[in-house]
Amino acid sequence: MRYVEFDESREFDLLLLGRVAIDFNPAYNDQVKEEFKPLKDVHTFEKFVGGSPANVSVGVTRHGMKAGFIGKVSADQFGDYVIEYFDNLGIDTSNISRAQNGEKLGLTFTEMLSEKESSILMYRNQAADLALSPEDINEDYIKSAKAILISGTALAESPSREAAIKAVMLAKRNNTKVIFDIDYRAYNWKNDDEISIYYSMIAKESDVIMGSREEFDLTEKLIQPGMNDEESAALWHSHNAKIVVIKHGMKGSTAYTDDGQQFSIKPFPVNARKGFGGGDGYGSGFLYGLYQGWDIIDCLEFGSAEASMMVRSNNCSDDLPVTEEVHEFIKMEKEQYGEMIARI
Amino acid sequence: MRYVEFDESREFDLLLLGRVAIDFNPAYNDQVKEEFKPLKDVHTFEKFVGGSPANVSVGVTRHGMKAGFIGKVSADQFGDYVIEYFDNLGIDTSNISRAQNGEKLGLTFTEMLSEKESSILMYRNQAADLALSPEDINEDYIKSAKAILISGTALAESPSREAAIKAVMLAKRNNTKVIFDIDYRAYNWKNDDEISIYYSMIAKESDVIMGSREEFDLTEKLIQPGMNDEESAALWHSHNAKIVVIKHGMKGSTAYTDDGQQFSIKPFPVNARKGFGGGDGYGSGFLYGLYQGWDIIDCLEFGSAEASMMVRSNNCSDDLPVTEEVHEFIKMEKEQYGEMIARI
Amino acid sequence: MRYVEFDESREFDLLLLGRVAIDFNPAYNDQVKEEFKPLKDVHTFEKFVGGSPANVSVGVTRHGMKAGFIGKVSADQFGDYVIEYFDNLGIDTSNISRAQNGEKLGLTFTEMLSEKESSILMYRNQAADLALSPEDINEDYIKSAKAILISGTALAESPSREAAIKAVMLAKRNNTKVIFDIDYRAYNWKNDDEISIYYSMIAKESDVIMGSREEFDLTEKLIQPGMNDEESAALWHSHNAKIVVIKHGMKGSTAYTDDGQQFSIKPFPVNARKGFGGGDGYGSGFLYGLYQGWDIIDCLEFGSAEASMMVRSNNCSDDLPVTEEVHEFIKMEKEQYGEMIARI
Amino acid sequence: MRYVEFDESREFDLLLLGRVAIDFNPAYNDQVKEEFKPLKDVHTFEKFVGGSPANVSVGVTRHGMKAGFIGKVSADQFGDYVIEYFDNLGIDTSNISRAQNGEKLGLTFTEMLSEKESSILMYRNQAADLALSPEDINEDYIKSAKAILISGTALAESPSREAAIKAVMLAKRNNTKVIFDIDYRAYNWKNDDEISIYYSMIAKESDVIMGSREEFDLTEKLIQPGMNDEESAALWHSHNAKIVVIKHGMKGSTAYTDDGQQFSIKPFPVNARKGFGGGDGYGSGFLYGLYQGWDIIDCLEFGSAEASMMVRSNNCSDDLPVTEEVHEFIKMEKEQYGEMIARI
Repeated sequence: MRYVEFDESREFDLLLLGRVAIDFNPAYNDQVKEEFKPLKDVHTFEKFVGGSPANVSVGVTRHGMKAGFIGKVSADQFGDYVIEYFDNLGIDTSNISRAQNGEKLGLTFTEMLSEKESSILMYRNQAADLALSPEDINEDYIKSAKAILISGTALAESPSREAAIKAVMLAKRNNTKVIFDIDYRAYNWKNDDEISIYYSMIAKESDVIMGSREEFDLTEKLIQPGMNDEESAALWHSHNAKIVVIKHGMKGSTAYTDDGQQFSIKPFPVNARKGFGGGDGYGSGFLYGLYQGWDIIDCLEFGSAEASMMVRSNNCSDDLPVTEEVHEFIKMEKEQYGEMIARI
Repeated sequence: MRYVEFDESREFDLLLLGRVAIDFNPAYNDQVKEEFKPLKDVHTFEKFVGGSPANVSVGVTRHGMKAGFIGKVSADQFGDYVIEYFDNLGIDTSNISRAQNGEKLGLTFTEMLSEKESSILMYRNQAADLALSPEDINEDYIKSAKAILISGTALAESPSREAAIKAVMLAKRNNTKVIFDIDYRAYNWKNDDEISIYYSMIAKESDVIMGSREEFDLTEKLIQPGMNDEESAALWHSHNAKIVVIKHGMKGSTAYTDDGQQFSIKPFPVNARKGFGGGDGYGSGFLYGLYQGWDIIDCLEFGSAEASMMVRSNNCSDDLPVTEEVHEFIKMEKEQYGEMIARI
Repeated sequence: MRYVEFDESREFDLLLLGRVAIDFNPAYNDQVKEEFKPLKDVHTFEKFVGGSPANVSVGVTRHGMKAGFIGKVSADQFGDYVIEYFDNLGIDTSNISRAQNGEKLGLTFTEMLSEKESSILMYRNQAADLALSPEDINEDYIKSAKAILISGTALAESPSREAAIKAVMLAKRNNTKVIFDIDYRAYNWKNDDEISIYYSMIAKESDVIMGSREEFDLTEKLIQPGMNDEESAALWHSHNAKIVVIKHGMKGSTAYTDDGQQFSIKPFPVNARKGFGGGDGYGSGFLYGLYQGWDIIDCLEFGSAEASMMVRSNNCSDDLPVTEEVHEFIKMEKEQYGEMIARI
Repeated sequence: MRYVEFDESREFDLLLLGRVAIDFNPAYNDQVKEEFKPLKDVHTFEKFVGGSPANVSVGVTRHGMKAGFIGKVSADQFGDYVIEYFDNLGIDTSNISRAQNGEKLGLTFTEMLSEKESSILMYRNQAADLALSPEDINEDYIKSAKAILISGTALAESPSREAAIKAVMLAKRNNTKVIFDIDYRAYNWKNDDEISIYYSMIAKESDVIMGSREEFDLTEKLIQPGMNDEESAALWHSHNAKIVVIKHGMKGSTAYTDDGQQFSIKPFPVNARKGFGGGDGYGSGFLYGLYQGWDIIDCLEFGSAEASMMVRSNNCSDDLPVTEEVHEFIKMEKEQYGEMIARI
């Protein structure tokens, strides 16, 4: 059964709205290996495109989907870098604009202390992505896509906040499906009420919502705090959601569909290089399956596999796999650990 | 028939959220008469409490309703003045807080050029009312009231914007009715998209919506521009609205109820001192009738009468009438002009 | 002896740089008398041009001097009012520009509690005068004047701060004398170090410095705190000052000249309406005498008389006297109290 | 002859006030060589402490001088890195404070296009160094040093601007010598008038001034534009300067002493890795010689040698040489090119 009916006549499969940033990760390659250590002691860094929706745009493109990005980048060499990177992959950049008031691309310096401990140092003062504004939102562009994905970070500050809400309002009146990736980041938010206000506003309009238990708690604070997963799913189904995906980290995640079913998956076992980056692989894989019309449990398995592949990597974008690599990974994992290794 | 069912067990009839300001009007009284002239040539001014929701709080209190105000005023003598003025009238001020960062009460200097031409010069840089913030919103207070009135101006800037939205969300989960007085003022808004985003967000949750045709156009821009009054009313009835009042200035106004009826009224004939101030009289009178359970047409007539009384006055608050005065005014107008003078 | 040699060939006697504002004073005239009372209880206000350098520009013009004003006013009716008021008096307004970003004229609401107790409520958020910027400063204009008067308030914030400093630097290289009226107002300053830095920077370059003991203390904090009047005067004489006037309120004031002399004066006895406004009368009168080449003691007496005349008035600008009125006042006071009434 | 008499009883040789930042340079070492290329194409970066006064603090410390740093760094791992780096070198960090409002260390990404073409991409939105404020300036600390070096970049914005000026005022009243390294960087400055105002203010109080011809032009704009080197030197000698060093890039530089002498030097020939970084080596070497009481021409030669050594390097701090290395470099260059290779 197809829970979300995309308009197959549309040019773009998916537009992604939100932040694109640059990740500076401790170098870890054939030439240089910065082993686990405090950030202050790292001398050599590798530069990658980053930012959750940017990563997902790379991920779905690797699976052959036609994606476009709606965002704002700096008017400098780093802005050039991002646009060139997207162009080379085939991600449409026609709706990426340049910041006009000295705003800079967000930077993320990752600190990798061990397989499980990592942290990040963010540069997000006057970040270019948060300068996206309502006049940057083009209705024709939104109308040309099957769906738009909103990254919750875009809601953290004006005018990006209003740009994202406008995009959702235009999507609603043009039958462009809305996918909400809550993607909570503490920076730039001022208080919890604000988070609940804006997350819930988008969640009410969304066809697909993806987030962790903590992210759903933040979203629901002013509506009904303290709900469990089933209650959360029921709430959002009572609005517009067809599929609600709630994640519990290493314990796995569950998709709740609006016909009352639920489907669960857990991570594939791998040796992690870092404690983050899995989520974007998960989103890329899950959405690919959804667009293919797969059964939900297969979408989840594919997403989970892609997530596990990404936590092994030193980056969150460059190493996103093509479709065959994910199938191959699943096959090998199942051969090693058994057919049901990720299914709950 | 009662379109809005208030919980009669609640302590407060109405909480009003938004701006309270000070009006400096050209003096016009027994001692000094500043006749119609450019503002720069006015030498003597009279000081009054002003700001739409503040005026309505005075108006409904004059009719014996129990009102409370949710707002922020300056930490100076003008803030003292407002609170003392409210206290003396019996308006609850327990939820009026003081601005902590030098924000000042908004000031409105009115220019009266003729009976029909007037303008205003606003001081609203770092206005205290727009510093109202989510932490100033108290759920118990909202739960203690039959309804909350949101003035649209409160949505113009953060953090007042989020304070107002939070108040509405808390009202919804506590069965406190929501009355939305669109009350558009150009100052402080950055662009039209913003206006449509936030007005429509509140309108969707409201039981009663009151505004001019222009204000409904602003509200609906990102949903469906170009609707006529019937279409607008239908849209908001499809959400939560029971009564939608759309005003056309001197041509009169119409209330659309969610049972498909409509009721129209026009102004009573008077000699105007100024072209503004009527709206707050209208709101005060209409809401009083609504709380009394009157037929909608009687609510409208009472509101229209109070509006006409106020455009004759030199201020927008002090001269708001008590109930008997409005009845008396209606009686005299009808004796002079005929029973159906205001009814369409 | 002439302590300051003005270039008599210059078109303007004096350019004044700094704030012009609007004073709203409790009405006190034939029609309405707001007696001493808290500001919150005052109902009727009179509007006057205000702001120390604006008042002094009016004062010296009343004495027949040719003055020009360098400042920024709001792009609204109040800005029109100020420019029209100056134009009518003959004060040159060619170098008054309009604020472009919504800055508003500062407002001063005066509270008159008794003859000796008064306070003010200031509106100075995004004040137009502090938006004066270096590009507003015109070297040819400065070169066309015998002297420029800098009001210390102009130094409180950028870009007005840099505009004032630029004006002084251009004055120095064009032999335009510099008169520094310290005119300390707490608003807008961030800390005491800032005050000392910028006051002392201008004081070092000034030919004439006028201020209270407290103002000199603020100026000298980072150079040598705790000096007495003689030490202060010696310090500034060691830089460029020819005349240093230090005021002690009701106890009188003293002018220190760079030839080591000192001259003292005290106020003339009057019944005061308010505790402020005297300083600008003092400055106007003193500067008039100085330009006339009078003995310093006569300049002081004339200034002191004008100060006493102004504290009796309900405003700080409109009632500034013409020359004959001051002479007349001095004559009458001396007849009543004796020839030496103000001299120490 | 000693042009500047330091108080030899002081604990610190030199305090340096201004920015410390982080340089991310394209990796160029045994493991990874990022050859000349556009910044967007660089994948691997090396991290170094940077910022002109920070580099000079490293440079003079390498020569055995006792230095302390007055600045503000971020409250994050990069702030830790800087403090730890200074601590390890023996630079006093007791007067480095942490930014409290999310300000971040400035970042400099260097683009190396060829030996002569390079550019930088700066992250300086809400830079921590510009948050240094007057209350961070400690008179006892300044009194404990022979001299303080002010980097002109510290003057670009408040409150760092006022912190630097306060430091100079406290230096003056405590006989701590003032060294002004103009160090012009376009970022953060708003207009040319501002630059002239604040540079000239510090230059007037300085014992030693170092800058390029362009930097002196910026400094002198509001005093006397269009001067040549001799006129500039004479101007500053007429204030407090004992030594004025004016640089002309590859053409060499000249020191003007207040006894009317002048001494010139030119660069030593080397193969450059980058077009910047020489200035800080020059400053470090020149100041070391000055403290040793060397003849001015020898100070210049030593500084010029250290400059040439640094343009060969991939960084501006780590590779600053110890004294012996500079002597050795000079010896080798002279053997190869002749005794007078750098002297003009």
